[in-house]
Amino acid sequence: VTPGELPPTIAWAGDRIRLIDQRRLPDELVVVEVTTVAALCECIRSLAVRGAPALGAAGAMGVALASVRGASLTEAAEALIGTRPTAVNLAAGVRRALAAADPVAEAVGLAEEDLAVNRSIGHHGVTVVGHGARVLTHCNAGALACVGYGTALGVVRAAHDAGRSPFVWVDETRPVLQGSRLTAWELDRAGIPFRVIVDGAAGALMAAGEVDLVLVGADRVTRSGDVVNKVGTYGLAVLARHHGIPFHVAVPFSTIDPSTGTGADVPIEERDEAEVLAWAGRRVAPAGARARNPAFDVTPAELVTSYLTDRGILEPGSLRLAVDDPVRGGS
Amino acid sequence: VTPGELPPTIAWAGDRIRLIDQRRLPDELVVVEVTTVAALCECIRSLAVRGAPALGAAGAMGVALASVRGASLTEAAEALIGTRPTAVNLAAGVRRALAAADPVAEAVGLAEEDLAVNRSIGHHGVTVVGHGARVLTHCNAGALACVGYGTALGVVRAAHDAGRSPFVWVDETRPVLQGSRLTAWELDRAGIPFRVIVDGAAGALMAAGEVDLVLVGADRVTRSGDVVNKVGTYGLAVLARHHGIPFHVAVPFSTIDPSTGTGADVPIEERDEAEVLAWAGRRVAPAGARARNPAFDVTPAELVTSYLTDRGILEPGSLRLAVDDPVRGGS
Repeated sequence: VTPGELPPTIAWAGDRIRLIDQRRLPDELVVVEVTTVAALCECIRSLAVRGAPALGAAGAMGVALASVRGASLTEAAEALIGTRPTAVNLAAGVRRALAAADPVAEAVGLAEEDLAVNRSIGHHGVTVVGHGARVLTHCNAGALACVGYGTALGVVRAAHDAGRSPFVWVDETRPVLQGSRLTAWELDRAGIPFRVIVDGAAGALMAAGEVDLVLVGADRVTRSGDVVNKVGTYGLAVLARHHGIPFHVAVPFSTIDPSTGTGADVPIEERDEAEVLAWAGRRVAPAGARARNPAFDVTPAELVTSYLTDRGILEPGSLRLAVDDPVRGGS
Repeated sequence: VTPGELPPTIAWAGDRIRLIDQRRLPDELVVVEVTTVAALCECIRSLAVRGAPALGAAGAMGVALASVRGASLTEAAEALIGTRPTAVNLAAGVRRALAAADPVAEAVGLAEEDLAVNRSIGHHGVTVVGHGARVLTHCNAGALACVGYGTALGVVRAAHDAGRSPFVWVDETRPVLQGSRLTAWELDRAGIPFRVIVDGAAGALMAAGEVDLVLVGADRVTRSGDVVNKVGTYGLAVLARHHGIPFHVAVPFSTIDPSTGTGADVPIEERDEAEVLAWAGRRVAPAGARARNPAFDVTPAELVTSYLTDRGILEPGSLRLAVDDPVRGGS
């Protein structure tokens, strides 16, 4: 691993999985080996591995793990899918490996595809990033959310490599701080200039004319084009519309789920209240306090400027046509 | 102090100031004695005492402190005003004590007035809180932001006392977490039901129909009715408008500053980057990361439903007339 380059976020290693333990970032870069489905489920639940595309690979590799261990594939599949109810890629990855003659080969293939898909998203998406553009992003839709490269941050990476000198406003993204911990770490390693802000500061920066576009990933896009992503994304979309700032969603085409009609059909994961009531392991709220902790929110299609995908740039109107395209087939 | 009741946030004690050290809440309720202007300035800068009305009392008491210590009043005034450039009440409190024949009596009088003003805001404002209303608030505009009772939370307190059974969504309010630390603590002591949320979750709750009104305080209201308040307030106002939810600002009439034309004329304090990159001494962002940390933002008058003041409820259109009213005189 050369400076700036990362090991894969998640990779198959003969008979086990190797993954970056994202709970320990940015303090230390630790690659852990996972040898059981139960251990993988715990890694997924605790966000040691997270991000829609990475969870797709994790799901497939979890089934591969069960197959090399001689465990029940259907029990493994059920356990894996139950860990994060909102992530469509996780379930899709599980099902794909489950349906394959060779789950290991399928999982390895899926991971390779993911890298290629992300580079393709970057290739297409770079056109929305003007020279010197100030991009605002939320959560982490980077290499750490995928097998590598990244979706929203992949587009930023492509713009950087093309000499477009992008700058990134990084929402810290409470409660788990994927922005200040992970996105900041990735951008720092890649030499892309950025500043971290609290999530509440986005509006002030937009009003001051300091944001040229918003660029986020998604955990699921519905058939109607509604975007399910980290809580806080919807507020950014409303603010972007209020200020006439483009709001782009960078996703693998496979994240668009033709079986989900609209955002109202998506189960929203409620996570542990402790994530809100504590900060970096230190309780901050009084003992009697309780919290609500929805992990995701829904941004309606009408607030989306475009979807940056590996099949090109789609607008809300053209998204449904593309999803209904029979050529999609087994993609 | 009976259960649920608080000592005054700040009080004059013969020849010194006693104030609740809000840096130590909610872990412990500690009242500290402040005997020098330099120590008071440090308390203000580090947010041991904060909130627009409380800073008004702090400013006046700081001048009183200089007078009983035989120190230079003008030097004390300059030092105090320089600590928080956005807070209009701080400077107003300083100037009022400075102009008085007896700074101590003036400071004590200002603190007594503050309590009466807050109760009056509650008396008028309670009418906007329907039975069982779910109020969303940001930062802490409670007793801890004032000498006692509170502005936005004073209205909630009045609604609670009137049997209207309000419920409060508490924005945690990064970076300093005045919501989860202070507002949650106050509501818990007052027996008013609440849940803490991350700042980014407000949009999802509004979209789900779980917010009936937004109720915030302000550090300054301009002649045009623009509201300068804790960063994140503006985003809430845009979201409230998008969802057709009322957005109310509870303020002492004296927080309306006729000498400031619009929000563009207000200096916005930029605070230490470390507030964003770390919490309670624990760094979360990588070593190379930097941050932007504007403490406030500006909500334009057109997004405000009404101002709940000690002179009654004003709408943006009537605010300017009220400010220009010559009866205002020495208030």
